[in-house]
Amino acid sequence: MPELRKDPIIGRWVIIATERAKRPDQFSSSYAEAPAETACPFCEGAEDSTPPEIYSVRPRGSPANSPGWELRVVPSISPFLKIEGDLERRGKGLYDLMNGIGAHEVVIETNKHIANMADISEEQISRVITCYIDRMLDLEKDRRFKYVLVFKNYGWSSGGGRVKHSRSQLIATPVNPKRVKEELSGAHFYYDYHERCVFCDIIKQEMSSKDRMILDIDGFIAISPFASRFPFEVWIMPKKHSCDFTALEQDRRRDLARIMKQVLLKLKKGLNDPAYNYVIHSAPFRRPSKAGYWKSVDYDYHWHIEIIPRLTRVAGFEWGTGFYICPLTPEDAAKFLREVEV
Amino acid sequence: MPELRKDPIIGRWVIIATERAKRPDQFSSSYAEAPAETACPFCEGAEDSTPPEIYSVRPRGSPANSPGWELRVVPSISPFLKIEGDLERRGKGLYDLMNGIGAHEVVIETNKHIANMADISEEQISRVITCYIDRMLDLEKDRRFKYVLVFKNYGWSSGGGRVKHSRSQLIATPVNPKRVKEELSGAHFYYDYHERCVFCDIIKQEMSSKDRMILDIDGFIAISPFASRFPFEVWIMPKKHSCDFTALEQDRRRDLARIMKQVLLKLKKGLNDPAYNYVIHSAPFRRPSKAGYWKSVDYDYHWHIEIIPRLTRVAGFEWGTGFYICPLTPEDAAKFLREVEV
Repeated sequence: MPELRKDPIIGRWVIIATERAKRPDQFSSSYAEAPAETACPFCEGAEDSTPPEIYSVRPRGSPANSPGWELRVVPSISPFLKIEGDLERRGKGLYDLMNGIGAHEVVIETNKHIANMADISEEQISRVITCYIDRMLDLEKDRRFKYVLVFKNYGWSSGGGRVKHSRSQLIATPVNPKRVKEELSGAHFYYDYHERCVFCDIIKQEMSSKDRMILDIDGFIAISPFASRFPFEVWIMPKKHSCDFTALEQDRRRDLARIMKQVLLKLKKGLNDPAYNYVIHSAPFRRPSKAGYWKSVDYDYHWHIEIIPRLTRVAGFEWGTGFYICPLTPEDAAKFLREVEV
Repeated sequence: MPELRKDPIIGRWVIIATERAKRPDQFSSSYAEAPAETACPFCEGAEDSTPPEIYSVRPRGSPANSPGWELRVVPSISPFLKIEGDLERRGKGLYDLMNGIGAHEVVIETNKHIANMADISEEQISRVITCYIDRMLDLEKDRRFKYVLVFKNYGWSSGGGRVKHSRSQLIATPVNPKRVKEELSGAHFYYDYHERCVFCDIIKQEMSSKDRMILDIDGFIAISPFASRFPFEVWIMPKKHSCDFTALEQDRRRDLARIMKQVLLKLKKGLNDPAYNYVIHSAPFRRPSKAGYWKSVDYDYHWHIEIIPRLTRVAGFEWGTGFYICPLTPEDAAKFLREVEV
């Protein structure tokens, strides 16, 4: 059983993933190169190669786990967290831990062997967005979970797998991730003082200065954040205030798909198809019975997507200190990406 | 002039390093492989290839920047921060920034072309430790600075340079790094409740359980931390409580050198000479005039060294969420490293 362990000094939870653990002597120091690609278990026709599907977009009447689908969600074959069991929060001397309960799902974004989401149609990306929302709403029903993280690893150096079939992942966790908690606290602190959402203020300032603006279309903006940690980091934000990604209206999903595709194409074309990660930051589950600290989240938090191209090696220093060094100004990054035609 | 910019949501300062900036079109996505090594500017005899030395260990009467030295410190040739100027803290709409003032120095740890600190003698590592302390004490005199970070990038995938000459770096910053602030707050919170140092409690528990103990010699322990973020992460801690690395007595520096060398040799031998980073976490400068929040740091903080071998690619997810997934239990890591003979 994997474990969730809490750092006793700074309070960060860590997943100790025993299920996909290697033996200590199997760790090697040569992780730089991607191994050769193997047969793809995610293409249409290979439905037997994955665990049974949890969700799919397929013609009415078409049986589950058969060909003919447009999109599938399957449990991860080597999950970081296990779906069955209780959390059993407990102490071990001064340490805190609980069982590694959670969900870990793979969203297969296309039935074709396309590697980069940039090359998927807007219409299909819009289906992926709807799928994220449907899965998040379904996982919210499980009272053991507090959060669903949606993320993507594209390319080997982003942590992606050896098979190059476009997909993303969802992990439902029984704790809120540290970074999300920090954003919630920071946004709350700002709201307390200004009585305004910090994200809404950022959007206003970026739309007025335009220095870091990459795209401004259909109710969304894509910017290089003022304090970018990485060169060409991009944030996509809805102009309309909303803390909750799952509340995105049906007819706005196509608009989000459009700006996502354009940003991903600009990165691909402008930067020679780099590896990248993205994460969706949305409010934690707000259950009716849960009062207290996150009560104000409706007003002070604002969902957004963070995209991080993996172009630099600088990392260990940053991990050890939380102090990021970005070798490119966000203004130069935004100007460069604005000018990439897609 | 480089800039320090503050993330308006979570309050993290970031260095926007304009001085060593590349043009946007010079970023490529192929950072995986190390380029060929060039002529070494750090070897004895190449003193002209570096900026003039700030500090050296050399025979009495031997002129600066001539051969015959054992250890040299020089300013970084492409510094992240600039030493001259004022901070000029200011706002820009809702954003906060200041000039990128700071010191960035390179500690050349040996006059020989040795790559890994593991292969340097204990005596020489002890000189490196004394050098760190001397430089930290000197930089503390500059009232613009709040902190000195000592760190090492060994190997290409750790962010190390193309030249393989063992060295470490010091960066003096006008702000406390986020991670250090989190440790100070967390340790303070624990102390408030328990009236004990959390690090001292960890040391006691690890010495009693022995599950995560790697080495226990000469007043120092090396452990795999309970909530390790990375496989084979190692912390070295002094058993005797002290918040301040620079207060380490002269005759204990050789003991620290011994355990550092043994840990680094175990990593080298057991894990096929992996890339690694280390950082020294010590209390921020405690100036007589500065009262307030960090007052209790003498009691509740405890300096230590964090060593992170770079064996896994998992990163973007962790960057985006602060949620680390460690694919090896710290107990297995410690057992493995205990058994590597050096």
